[in-house]
This record gives sequence, C-alpha cells and structure tokens, in this order.
Amino acid sequence: MDKRHKTYVRVPVDELKRTVSETLQVHDVPREDAEIVAEVLVASDLRGIESHGVARLASYYLNGLQQQEVNARANSQIVSRAGSVFTMDADNGLGHPACYRAMEQCIALAAESGIAAGGVRNSNHYGIAGYYAMRAAEKGLIGVCLTNSKPLVLPTYGRTPTLGTNPISVAVPAGDRPPFVLDMATSAVPIGRIEVLKRKEQRAPDGWGADRDGLPTDDPIEILECGGLFPLGGTADTSGYKGYGLAAVVDILSGVLSGAAFLTGVNAASEAKRSNVGHFVAAMQVEAIMKKEEFFSRMGQFMDELKNAPLARGSEEIYLAGEKEHRHYLKNKREGAPLHPKVYMELLEACELRQVEPPRI
Amino acid sequence: MDKRHKTYVRVPVDELKRTVSETLQVHDVPREDAEIVAEVLVASDLRGIESHGVARLASYYLNGLQQQEVNARANSQIVSRAGSVFTMDADNGLGHPACYRAMEQCIALAAESGIAAGGVRNSNHYGIAGYYAMRAAEKGLIGVCLTNSKPLVLPTYGRTPTLGTNPISVAVPAGDRPPFVLDMATSAVPIGRIEVLKRKEQRAPDGWGADRDGLPTDDPIEILECGGLFPLGGTADTSGYKGYGLAAVVDILSGVLSGAAFLTGVNAASEAKRSNVGHFVAAMQVEAIMKKEEFFSRMGQFMDELKNAPLARGSEEIYLAGEKEHRHYLKNKREGAPLHPKVYMELLEACELRQVEPPRI
Repeated sequence: MDKRHKTYVRVPVDELKRTVSETLQVHDVPREDAEIVAEVLVASDLRGIESHGVARLASYYLNGLQQQEVNARANSQIVSRAGSVFTMDADNGLGHPACYRAMEQCIALAAESGIAAGGVRNSNHYGIAGYYAMRAAEKGLIGVCLTNSKPLVLPTYGRTPTLGTNPISVAVPAGDRPPFVLDMATSAVPIGRIEVLKRKEQRAPDGWGADRDGLPTDDPIEILECGGLFPLGGTADTSGYKGYGLAAVVDILSGVLSGAAFLTGVNAASEAKRSNVGHFVAAMQVEAIMKKEEFFSRMGQFMDELKNAPLARGSEEIYLAGEKEHRHYLKNKREGAPLHPKVYMELLEACELRQVEPPRI
Repeated sequence: MDKRHKTYVRVPVDELKRTVSETLQVHDVPREDAEIVAEVLVASDLRGIESHGVARLASYYLNGLQQQEVNARANSQIVSRAGSVFTMDADNGLGHPACYRAMEQCIALAAESGIAAGGVRNSNHYGIAGYYAMRAAEKGLIGVCLTNSKPLVLPTYGRTPTLGTNPISVAVPAGDRPPFVLDMATSAVPIGRIEVLKRKEQRAPDGWGADRDGLPTDDPIEILECGGLFPLGGTADTSGYKGYGLAAVVDILSGVLSGAAFLTGVNAASEAKRSNVGHFVAAMQVEAIMKKEEFFSRMGQFMDELKNAPLARGSEEIYLAGEKEHRHYLKNKREGAPLHPKVYMELLEACELRQVEPPRI
C-alpha cells in the first residue's frame, strides 16, 4: 500500500468531498444527496478500497446521470411498512442516498423495537456496503447491509454469469476500539482482480474464474470475456456451493423480497434506462440483549484472543475484519485521500467539463 | 447416495423417533424435550445429513447426559427482552429444545413486529442449524439460525484452531415448492470429511486444512492431530479471510452477544461440565414487505432461472440450496430413515443398555 502510494496524489478530505459533490450537483442532484454520495465514495478511498471510491465517479455515476439512466432528482420513499420492517422505492435514483436513508430508518425503528429491517428497490449502485453497516455501528447498533448487482458469478455447475458479486457487510460496535466490519463480495474475488491480471499479463490462480464451458481456467481474458467468476470457495470440490448459496441469499433478500430485479434481471440490457438494483438493510440494538459496556468488554476479549492467537509460520499478524481498512483510514484522513494519478486526472477532467473548481491540494 | 444405502438399515420414521426419545427419557429428559431432540436428529438423517443425525445420539447426547455434563431437566428461560429481541438461558440443557423454543419465540414476536431475534446462552450442541431456520420457513417466515461450536478452524494467518465450524442457516419459504435452505459450515469442509480421508488413507485437496505450522497440507492425520481446518475459501490467496470473517460474525452473534462462551472458550477443557454453546435465531415476516403470493411467485421465478441456467460442460444439474436434501427427505420419509449399519448397531446397543424396546423395522 505504502509503496503504491508514492505515485498517488493526496487530496485533502474536505476538498475531495466538495469536488465530488459539486460535479454531481451540476447534473441536478440535490446538494444533500450529492453530499451523501461524496461521503460514501471518499470513505471508500480513505479505507483503501480504491475500486469503489472516486475512481467510479465519472464512469458510474456522472455518466449514468448524463445519460439519464439514473434519476438525479429521485424522490425515494418508504412505500410500505409493517411493524419494524419496511420497503423503500428509490425512484431510480443514486443508490447512496437511498440506502443511507433506509439505514437511518432502520436505526430509528430498531431504537423502538430492538431490531428492524428494510428492502430497497428501484435503486442503483451504491458504493461500499460496509459504509451503511458502519452507520449503525457508529450509533452502537449491529448493522447489516446487502445488495445485489449485475451478473458476473457462475452458480455451481453452471457456465454463465447469473449472480452478482452480491456483497455481505456486517458491522459490530466495539466501544473505544474500531468496529468489527466484515464487507465481502460472495464471489471468490472481485472482477477488478481479474482485470489487473489481464493488464499485467499474469495467470489466474485456481478457483478464481471459469472459461466459456464453466470449467476452471487460469486465463484472465477467457474469464472476463467468455466465462465468469466462481463464487467464494471456487468449484464444487472446494465448497464453491457455499459461496453460491450466500450469493443467492443476498439476492433473495435484496432483490426478490424488495421487489427489485434479481439474477440476470439486474442491470439487464433490455432495461438500459433502469438497473433496478435492490438492497437490504438491518440493524439490531445491542442493549436489547446486554448492557453496552458488557458487550464492548466482551468484544474486546474476542478481538484480543484473535489478535493474540499463535501465528502461522511466515505470517506476521492476524487481522480482524475491517482492521486493515481502519488503519488506512487513520493514515489517509491525516495525509489526504490517495488517488491513483489516472483517477486524479479523470477527476480534474470531470471538474473542467462541468466548470467545477478542482480540488485544492 | 443410493449405492451407499444398499447396506443401510431402513428404519420407519415414527419408530426411530420413538426409540431416540425413549433412550433420552431414561436419562430423565422430559418427554416433550426428548421428542424435540428426536425430531431434529431424525430430520437430519431424512435429509441425508448423516453426520448430524442419530449417529450422534449415543456419543454426543446420551453420553453427555450420563456424565452429567448436560442438564437433563434444564429449565430454559427467556432472561431478558427488549421489544422484539430477547435472550434465553438454556440452563445447560440439550441444545435442541432450547433452540426450538427460541425460534418459536422469535416467530411469535415477528408476527407482531415483522422481525425478531434472540440469543441463546448456556446451551449445548443442537444438531443441524437448518432445522430451526426451516421451522420459520414452514410458517411462511424467513428464518435464520447460527451457532458457535468447539474450535476446529484456523483464523487466516493463524496456526491453531480458534473458531468453530460455526454454521449459517437461512431458510426461505417458496409456497408450494420446497423452501430454499442454506445450511453451511463456515469452514472449508466439515471435520468429518477429513476423518473419512484418514480412514481411506487418501490425501486432502488444497485449501481444506493446515499442518502444525498453519500451512496447507494434504495429510489428513496432520490436519486432525496437529493443525486444523481452513475457513471457507481456504488460505488468504483464495479469500479464506472471507470464511474467517463469516465464522467470526457467527461467533459474535451466537457467543459474544448472547453471553455464551466464544472462540476457544466453547467446550473448553477447563469447564468440562459445561460447554456454554451459544445460538442466534432470527425470523422475518415476508408479508411485512409484500403479499405472500407475490413473494412466492417471485421465488418461483428466481428458482426457475437458476435451475434453467446453462450448464457447465460435464455437469448435469444446477442445485438450489436445500434441494438435494429435500429429495433425500421425500425418499427417506417413504422408505424409512437410512442408518449406517454401524449406527444402527450402536442404536440397538443404546436401547439394550437402557431397556428400551428397539425400533420395529
């Protein structure tokens, strides 16, 4: 990470957020929504998850708004609620403000009843799932956030991409310590890892992806152009049906149940103007079960035992979920969000095209 | 499966349940509790999951009762509740009746508020997680059941078993169709798979287990005696940190939050008389989000699309989670629960020792 960052441009956090927000506002996104998108994208870069950060601003979001595939002035609304469970229709707007508000609603309902959940339909790509789960953890609740996404992953024994990389995020507060934050795609690896191999002309390890016949291949071009990603676990021999099952659960909760698209219906070519992505959020109060202080103290013991467990030969450290990302966050918040030179140039270009003042660095 | 079953003894379902229940009652387990245990164990054999069925009656449950490690006349109770979230203390009783009642409570609370969850502490081994999740699905709700278990799995970059195989089960009702039932250990494979390799003097595939240094090995004896299982995904190179993260989430919800033991504390030698296993249950009403009929119809479309997706070369069928198990169930319910001859002999022996009438076959 550090070596990589030598060529990166460090952009002060507030400046980066302002720039992202202003470019979105040029496309008629209300300021409040634009600021939420900026918050989520910059959080991703701060946590070292470059693939889901500002790198996607132009290609995913500004482009979608420009092509009017995404509704800039979406009016996301709760369309049904029964007790502590609700559905939101995102009105084909940006996924970030929709899911942000769905999680806010969830947290508010869980304050009353201990636990709450909601489905979001008619939405779009929303960045990192972990952001929304962490919103709950910041307020002392356990947060869960799932989303479906365009088909890239083969079902076990299948040969065409049918499921998205459908991430699972669970964030657990731990008092004074950084939260436990699991944020994982249910595919063996993200598609970006295969793209990197292709660029570097390297072969793919076993279990990452399949060729046109659905059989394992080490050729990144074959995986990208004719085959697809294996689910977490790889092939059936290495329990890939578990990753496939998890991806299916994510799609059932995010897509089938919310009323959004699912499987190959997500982002389908026939609906070029509407991806109809679905999300699922849930939040649970810790205090409903035990005093917060006791829970935090137990989380501390849990974390300490894992951190202090004996190391494998040649290994230097056991990490907790979200721990590496939190270290990046602390460093990057201080030194500025690290943007790859190419991403930085794209950002300057996006600013110039829209007459937005570029970030002051 | 069918070939294997040629040597198996088919026991009529009611007779098997009666026998299991009566052997437990000899050890002072109340009839109602004994019948729940029998129901869960026999359900496992009917679904083709032999490892978690009647095969464990003598070694796990009768033995635990006999040694007074498990409280036969446990008085499991809800010890706290806030809104739709509760904690149950299982009073060191058998895990099955405790978790069965926790799920009943969850379903009742979800009927009021749409969603509910509960933690169970001070419990013991409870058979298949899928059974409890399916109880919710039978009543039209989405059910979730998790449990921690004794340490067998290495954290990524670690070298000693620190986490259990901590299963995740999610069951989703689908109207007239059999439910979608994911029921998976978060380890790469169950420990039983390694034991089978050892018996057959075969080598273990990559990514299943580690040697005493925490490095991959193909030697089942090394895995069983000095090393441990890898989490789902295998080593860090094949995203094993995702399986490790999932196992940690299961332990946080089942153990840390419920007040049960966690990590190496589960079934720890120092507490020989009390395993203090923890479970987590949740149930969500579908009707809180959309009409049941609509949801079932969408689940049908989801299932059909997966079943009809193009097959990998050499593959015959894409399976839905729980589908194979449901086929076993239909066949075995008709023909009788298939018991391995060794398991059948153990059952006869358990009956004889306790003067229980053996199953009439």
